Amino acid sequence: MLDLTVDAGALTAALVDIESVSGDEAHLADLVLATLVALPALDVERDGNVVLARTSLGRDQRVVLAGHLDTVPIAGNVPSRIEDGVLYGCGTADMKSGVAVMLRLAHLVGTQQLEPGADLTWVLYDCEEIEAARNGLGRLARERPADLGGDLAILLEPTDGAVEGGCQGTLRAEVRTSGVRSHSARSWLGINAIHVAAPVLQRLAEYQAREIDVDALTYREGLNAVRISGGIAGNVIPDECVVTVNYRFAPDRSEADAAAHVGEVFDGLAVTVVDSAPAARPGLDSPLPQAFVRAVGGAARAKLGWTDVARFGVLGIPAVNFGPGDPNLAHTVDEHVELSKVVAAEVALTRFLQGSR
Amino acid sequence: MLDLTVDAGALTAALVDIESVSGDEAHLADLVLATLVALPALDVERDGNVVLARTSLGRDQRVVLAGHLDTVPIAGNVPSRIEDGVLYGCGTADMKSGVAVMLRLAHLVGTQQLEPGADLTWVLYDCEEIEAARNGLGRLARERPADLGGDLAILLEPTDGAVEGGCQGTLRAEVRTSGVRSHSARSWLGINAIHVAAPVLQRLAEYQAREIDVDALTYREGLNAVRISGGIAGNVIPDECVVTVNYRFAPDRSEADAAAHVGEVFDGLAVTVVDSAPAARPGLDSPLPQAFVRAVGGAARAKLGWTDVARFGVLGIPAVNFGPGDPNLAHTVDEHVELSKVVAAEVALTRFLQGSR
Repeated sequence: MLDLTVDAGALTAALVDIESVSGDEAHLADLVLATLVALPALDVERDGNVVLARTSLGRDQRVVLAGHLDTVPIAGNVPSRIEDGVLYGCGTADMKSGVAVMLRLAHLVGTQQLEPGADLTWVLYDCEEIEAARNGLGRLARERPADLGGDLAILLEPTDGAVEGGCQGTLRAEVRTSGVRSHSARSWLGINAIHVAAPVLQRLAEYQAREIDVDALTYREGLNAVRISGGIAGNVIPDECVVTVNYRFAPDRSEADAAAHVGEVFDGLAVTVVDSAPAARPGLDSPLPQAFVRAVGGAARAKLGWTDVARFGVLGIPAVNFGPGDPNLAHTVDEHVELSKVVAAEVALTRFLQGSR
Repeated sequence: MLDLTVDAGALTAALVDIESVSGDEAHLADLVLATLVALPALDVERDGNVVLARTSLGRDQRVVLAGHLDTVPIAGNVPSRIEDGVLYGCGTADMKSGVAVMLRLAHLVGTQQLEPGADLTWVLYDCEEIEAARNGLGRLARERPADLGGDLAILLEPTDGAVEGGCQGTLRAEVRTSGVRSHSARSWLGINAIHVAAPVLQRLAEYQAREIDVDALTYREGLNAVRISGGIAGNVIPDECVVTVNYRFAPDRSEADAAAHVGEVFDGLAVTVVDSAPAARPGLDSPLPQAFVRAVGGAARAKLGWTDVARFGVLGIPAVNFGPGDPNLAHTVDEHVELSKVVAAEVALTRFLQGSR
């Protein structure tokens, strides 16, 4: 059992000290389950290493709070330690501080200290830090999407306390040129596939990325080579060159739109999409997300990156990223979080949930 | 002992049946040494797995005959077999047929059946088919260049009976671009080194290679990318891209000239020469090589490739490639040589050596 009566900072420290590297979340999921089951106001269930909890208060709207239980591998930075109000350790920023805030809200609602204006769903899931196929939230979105339903999803990934709406989509494609092999001493007998790739790099170098407003947030796109390879041996004219490009696209485009755009940029060349994930609209043109932004204070900005909020986007649910950690510290040995910011996130969410009634 | 009284075709078959893959030439070198030592007109010595033989007839000029004893690894094609006047097997073309011609000439000179107009040196060497550092001819050129001296060197590598003068030089350089890493979701925070490489490929695609006459032969050059690599991960803007280029240059340019030219082509970019080998002039503007071309019949052409003749070129000795095998069959499982062509090469060289007195 976890002690949810301590403040969110102290709870973060307790969570960091329970190791839960991706694939090894069972013990932490056990503890979370036992702790939430003890709160009578919540319906709690476990599905694999995902713990789901929900209120049934009959409210008109439902807010989903989501966070992952796992961390990247520990790098000598567990157990946690506190210095000058800062908590150091694996997962402090990404994202046991966010999980602590989620559990504290469950405690406040479960003990009637907080009467939320919306019904609430908690989703605490596994395997976020590893290959997408194993992601616990992704599995739920495929297998039981109705249980993720709501009017606003808040993913407590680190944003340093800012509201980051939606997320970019990401698409990877291979642009392939071909030629004819020959000995490099008689290169005119061949066709050099690397030379043929010159226009690919030229178009990338000249590409003007869009900046576009979606639901009042500005998304900046990018189209970049992330890998290039070609060549067989030091004396052979190469017959193939492959440029892998990554297109980060705004939520006004679907994955199909994104693929079509990349195809247009490389018109006349062989393009194969090898990987893509959808963007998510921030939904900041609807009342509940707007109320959320007002309650937590300050302006929202676009999420420039892909996050699990896209899994809510696919279900048509407006989704925002909001967490106490600093995203730049995620996955670093020196990972840390200011304890006061964890508490501030709890306070901000409490204010929102009270006000949303 | 080898039987040198048989014709050059039969001698080729005998040599093919003595396996001598690179590094494993000792047994064949033993036999060659013992066979040549039995010819009183020759001074013969062994240096490692190189066998050197020479006449001391007091002639004004000296012709060096050179060939390698080793083959690429056997591919189920030894022992040799003859079908319809064609000899099949590993090394038939590259270059035991050439070695057979060399040994037949030694026999004719050693038994006074041929009185050459020039003194002769035979160099039968090891490790041509593997890394250059182990090449037996290269070792002699470094350690005892005087023993390779002469007025014309004939390398009996396969040319299908044509005279191929000199050889191209070859230089490899890395053209490196650099950038700044960032997450590909926020690519504007980085500098994409692959995009920066666009002008490298553009200059290669637009490059006009020289065709230039050297000592009456036309050399065609080439500058080509033979490898390109860049990229760290599918979501990272790469901070380095390396294009490896191979410049094949005519013998009017030294290695330093070649490096300077590549530096000019990629002016403003970081260029590092990683490997180079000199070209060799054909020397077809001097009497002895001209006499050779006349005697063997037909026109000479430039050697478009790098061969060991460059090791003579460095010593200032005009050098030509002339051998009975077809170069396109070298290193193939189906390697073969027409027996009549081996005999024809012996006849042509005999005619030249008689005429050169």
